[in-house]
Amino acid sequence: MNMPPSDARVGRRELLLLAGALASSGAATASSPAVPPNPGAHLILVHGAWHSSYCWCLVADRLRAQGVAVTAIDLPGHGINARYPTSYFVERQAGFVTEPTPLGDITLEVAAAAVIGVLEQHQGDTKPVLVGHSLGGSVITRAAEMAPDLIGRLVYLSAFLPTLQPSPAVLYALPEARTPFDASLTIGDATRIGAVRFNPRGTLDYLRSLQSVFYQDIPQERFLPFAGAMSPDLPLRLWTDAPQASAARWGRLRRTYIHCTQDRAISPALQQRMVQDADRFTPGNRTAVMALDSSHSPFASQVEPLASALQGMVRGG
Amino acid sequence: MNMPPSDARVGRRELLLLAGALASSGAATASSPAVPPNPGAHLILVHGAWHSSYCWCLVADRLRAQGVAVTAIDLPGHGINARYPTSYFVERQAGFVTEPTPLGDITLEVAAAAVIGVLEQHQGDTKPVLVGHSLGGSVITRAAEMAPDLIGRLVYLSAFLPTLQPSPAVLYALPEARTPFDASLTIGDATRIGAVRFNPRGTLDYLRSLQSVFYQDIPQERFLPFAGAMSPDLPLRLWTDAPQASAARWGRLRRTYIHCTQDRAISPALQQRMVQDADRFTPGNRTAVMALDSSHSPFASQVEPLASALQGMVRGG
Repeated sequence: MNMPPSDARVGRRELLLLAGALASSGAATASSPAVPPNPGAHLILVHGAWHSSYCWCLVADRLRAQGVAVTAIDLPGHGINARYPTSYFVERQAGFVTEPTPLGDITLEVAAAAVIGVLEQHQGDTKPVLVGHSLGGSVITRAAEMAPDLIGRLVYLSAFLPTLQPSPAVLYALPEARTPFDASLTIGDATRIGAVRFNPRGTLDYLRSLQSVFYQDIPQERFLPFAGAMSPDLPLRLWTDAPQASAARWGRLRRTYIHCTQDRAISPALQQRMVQDADRFTPGNRTAVMALDSSHSPFASQVEPLASALQGMVRGG
Repeated sequence: MNMPPSDARVGRRELLLLAGALASSGAATASSPAVPPNPGAHLILVHGAWHSSYCWCLVADRLRAQGVAVTAIDLPGHGINARYPTSYFVERQAGFVTEPTPLGDITLEVAAAAVIGVLEQHQGDTKPVLVGHSLGGSVITRAAEMAPDLIGRLVYLSAFLPTLQPSPAVLYALPEARTPFDASLTIGDATRIGAVRFNPRGTLDYLRSLQSVFYQDIPQERFLPFAGAMSPDLPLRLWTDAPQASAARWGRLRRTYIHCTQDRAISPALQQRMVQDADRFTPGNRTAVMALDSSHSPFASQVEPLASALQGMVRGG
């Protein structure tokens, strides 16, 4: 049951006043159960490249059934905000290899500003917990640098966490990023197109390759609805822009990294390297770490463990 | 800010006890603001054919920002539960015109049972408001017939409302259902395939036809993300099964019909006929009516007015 944040805040404060009044009137023994349990922070979920808020639907449903307030974002250029090259839809996708993206003006700053807009809507008693998956990690890092006061905790879910290395593009070129599972998924020349282009409308062969890297731990029939919700173009600047995290702003927030140990897209070695780099960057504020036995897509394959982990973070404060 | 339904219930009851204790101790003057305002009923949203919970994303975001508790369902065979004919994904979709659907076992009863499962999770102080769009109207009618005690109000959003006429298929054959906008959208023979088949992976020409009937009041670029979230097969029995509403069970619930006055899929004349039939069926319990100046897809084109209308229903009790 949702309560408006402002009303809930007033309600709880007044309740505490009431409990205090009762205590001072000597009738306090029965009052402690009256204080409602901390409903916890608002949980704000940021998807990765080519994905949308819909990728969280199973996790969000589970969390909401537990009373957790969840908002999943569609980043600029993704989900309901997706825009497509015309060639994506034409017969045999003629021209899809070269047509420039309509998303060329979307920068990391623009994406982070969208996240900040949502954070501002959900400033309650407890500041929101901000979760980024995959490329969403770079976006939440930039948002945290821009507006650290709006965030209670950062959670990186097998996500890019650029600190000593500037950007996802640079991190992905490290030796630790290599995996034996590199499939030829990108379409065309990202620099000329202005986007890292996938083809969610590709043939079943293409989709099998996509699944083998991103969703290898669920059956194909469960993967296809997730593929259906994807869009083709990751704006290039979300890949190449640097969040420019500073120790003083981003670095003062509590952060958790959830490792995905079977990840073929962001290798476990790269995940570890990014956490080590972050801890060197802010030695006084080390990353809390957890692990899921999961592919890159635990919101599809490890719904219950992921939901439990996130619930622990909003309730744990 | 979400609170678990059970905790919220306990919290409010205890709060009232506290307020009462304060009142009896003579310190009540400051206590009335402590009772939180009724957060309202849980709102449960049921999409129509080929759609998913994602079609509500803009409306649900807006409602959640206002503190309304919203759950949008993916019906069996839709959204994250979608299953596809293999030919949907192969080169030039060879065989797509004839391949049997993998969703042949999904009946109206199965779909309604899924809705009831969600209703059961959200029985708070106030029973949920259950909203059906388009074909979702037949599903919520069946759910209401099966479990009227779980529902506070039914809302039909330009939806099928079968009472005197048995099913969506029969209603759609009435003279009132005819529009000048019939496009050739269905693929193959529904009876042989076992589904009413659309092609959301069709060419831009096909998608333009789809938009001209379902989403004619938004720009193409805003329509395409909605199309991207659609799945191809509406299980035939969701179209042909009768919800078998009775006056004693379904007919005792309060109901609202939200007319979409520019609808080209379910014509305004058919919408009116269905309301007239329902009111003849339960003359002692007439339909409350509202109207939106909208195509068949107000969750895309009339987000703010639709969200306001729905918010009024959950708060209005």
